Amino acid sequence: MNIKNVLVAQSGGPTSAINASLAGVLKATIDSEEYTTCYGAINGILGVLSEKYLDLTKKAAEDAEFINLLTHTPAMYLGSCRYKLPDYKDDDSSYVFIFSQFKKLNIGAFFYIGGNDSMDTVLKLSNYAKEIGSDIRIIGVPKTIDNDLCRTDHTPGFGSAAKYIASSVLEIAHDTFIYAVKSVTIVEIMGRDAGWLTAAAALARNDYSSAPHLIYLPEAPFDKESFLSDVRAELSKRNNVIIAVSEGIRDKDGNYITSSKAMADTFGHQQLSGAGKALEFLIKENIDVKVRSVEVNVLQRCAAHMASKTDLDESFAQGEKAVALSVKGETGCMVVLNRLSNAPYEVEYSHARISEIANEAKSVPREWINEEGNDITSELIDYLKPLIEGEVVLSYKSGLPVYLDISHLNH
Amino acid sequence: MNIKNVLVAQSGGPTSAINASLAGVLKATIDSEEYTTCYGAINGILGVLSEKYLDLTKKAAEDAEFINLLTHTPAMYLGSCRYKLPDYKDDDSSYVFIFSQFKKLNIGAFFYIGGNDSMDTVLKLSNYAKEIGSDIRIIGVPKTIDNDLCRTDHTPGFGSAAKYIASSVLEIAHDTFIYAVKSVTIVEIMGRDAGWLTAAAALARNDYSSAPHLIYLPEAPFDKESFLSDVRAELSKRNNVIIAVSEGIRDKDGNYITSSKAMADTFGHQQLSGAGKALEFLIKENIDVKVRSVEVNVLQRCAAHMASKTDLDESFAQGEKAVALSVKGETGCMVVLNRLSNAPYEVEYSHARISEIANEAKSVPREWINEEGNDITSELIDYLKPLIEGEVVLSYKSGLPVYLDISHLNH
Repeated sequence: MNIKNVLVAQSGGPTSAINASLAGVLKATIDSEEYTTCYGAINGILGVLSEKYLDLTKKAAEDAEFINLLTHTPAMYLGSCRYKLPDYKDDDSSYVFIFSQFKKLNIGAFFYIGGNDSMDTVLKLSNYAKEIGSDIRIIGVPKTIDNDLCRTDHTPGFGSAAKYIASSVLEIAHDTFIYAVKSVTIVEIMGRDAGWLTAAAALARNDYSSAPHLIYLPEAPFDKESFLSDVRAELSKRNNVIIAVSEGIRDKDGNYITSSKAMADTFGHQQLSGAGKALEFLIKENIDVKVRSVEVNVLQRCAAHMASKTDLDESFAQGEKAVALSVKGETGCMVVLNRLSNAPYEVEYSHARISEIANEAKSVPREWINEEGNDITSELIDYLKPLIEGEVVLSYKSGLPVYLDISHLNH
Repeated sequence: MNIKNVLVAQSGGPTSAINASLAGVLKATIDSEEYTTCYGAINGILGVLSEKYLDLTKKAAEDAEFINLLTHTPAMYLGSCRYKLPDYKDDDSSYVFIFSQFKKLNIGAFFYIGGNDSMDTVLKLSNYAKEIGSDIRIIGVPKTIDNDLCRTDHTPGFGSAAKYIASSVLEIAHDTFIYAVKSVTIVEIMGRDAGWLTAAAALARNDYSSAPHLIYLPEAPFDKESFLSDVRAELSKRNNVIIAVSEGIRDKDGNYITSSKAMADTFGHQQLSGAGKALEFLIKENIDVKVRSVEVNVLQRCAAHMASKTDLDESFAQGEKAVALSVKGETGCMVVLNRLSNAPYEVEYSHARISEIANEAKSVPREWINEEGNDITSELIDYLKPLIEGEVVLSYKSGLPVYLDISHLNH
């Protein structure tokens, strides 16, 4: 048998679980009879183009704690990139170089862990491999806190972000309820096009707190007058109103509700901020009440200390699954999860064609949002609940979580 | 012996440790031979003025987990207020009412847990007690994430906030280092007048990360040109520069650093920015680099899931100490901590006259900030380090931390 190596890279925005998938790829490679070394490319596909690699198999051999620590370290251990490959029909030079690297490193399978944009890279590389008759397996491993990848029940990283959001909203409720004066607190949550993460704020509700009292997602058109009327109605019922709002809410004509200038990134996305601020000002101008907006910061995607055990376990298993798929000869696909049942929660691991996933996005179904567009339905809560279950146990040193040394990224 | 009851209330802004002090007062009351019932006033001194009380001794008797859960629940279990008593020489009506309440409830000691403003209430009530010849003990228990109370080494709530800030900056470093492009990330931290909490960001530094690379506190005058020069120097050394800045930084004339640059939102409003945004704009206008500012939100004062065990233990013990002081006949004082040693870390519990504490504030000594005013010294790090040591173990239910039911505040 011709023993090959594997190459893995990470791309797109950080999550608390993306290294768990990397750890899964590494563990499965080490355990396999088909592969020897697991190489990691630094900064995504750019690392292949610039020949920057780490020997992960060696790292794991040198440190018995490496795979465990990697599983619990937030953001990308291998670094990331936001780089879109050109169409190879227009310019195949980078493809030629990438596949020469694959040959040089004796690569049998390439795993790319990322979101929609990264799956575009998987699609292009697998199409090119087919074109040139290469038998190198090109497989995507999903990752995104946005939970907007098609053909899979939910994405690695989402459950941990959802747990962070729900616990944050619960703690903000404790923070807010202390004053016996009328107030409105707006919590702005990440999600440019999909409201999944904002919806997770609803998991903060419990026996003693119904916060968030209003939830606005990008999937339901936002109306200024309805919003003010919703807020007034809630203020008539209680002192402290807490509102969860997605950064990507927009009006019926599709215009973002935002207070900052739109800028475009490499992929043409608009960089948003300020939906929360916009609503804060709207309330200030129309309702005589104390109002504050809170922009949940980047910790919603990298607070590994609040990771969901369910999420990390599934992310690790999806990394392992990718290796198993490659051994079976699969290529041009992404690992997916199919949910078999909500209660008891059960999923199965499978795969889907990458062409059905790349550059597509999955929104919250309109029927999982209430008719008024200011809350979510119980079906969505049932869907979300299992994903935040379970806590991870981190090591601490000098009062802080112990994560893996990332000095190789500290350029 | 004339068995009395005690009354306790909480005031000012939330911390993760203020309920630990309340739990300490409750536990010591239950354990004492001098007192029977521990009453809590709802919403600080306003709860006394409006006769809103909870019987905490009864709560503890009904639920064996009550004191433990209380210790770990963020913000004020009894609610808070921001209310300044008038001078009793001008208007003694509220004093007359408060002391009639004390008599009605057979109160022997009143404990007020709070920061500078709350200690003003302790001072005024104890002066009035002296004036009318009352033997009711009036004792302050400190609390503030700002760590700016005089006569005590550090304040309950600060260690937990410091731990949250340090771990957040570490996780933000992981989040930031993933891209191999030059970037500046500004983290704005609470602290209008004192830089203690911003200084705690320095604890994020470890073997593989020197972030935050620059630290600016309100105690050192901020100069725009020096700042830009600092940032350029750091960018010449590394790709990703992380800056910790206090919300209260000001120039040599004492003017706060805010941006006049207006941002128009969807509804045509203009908004003024905080220190972080101001520095973001300053860099954008002067240095060609990707820049982002992160305002650490209210979780820095209520993220009980990241509490410092040292802080909670000390906060609990300071609540107990307040009860012990009252039994000894002390009044008109606040519980304080004296540090005996940094390593091994050792403190002793004592008390100081409330007149030396109320309405005073403790700043970071200038000699604990480096000469350039862009970092802190090793003395300050040695002071901070022990305060974030130790982790708390919370119970979780459905993936979220279990805190005490606060429906009595949910008006």
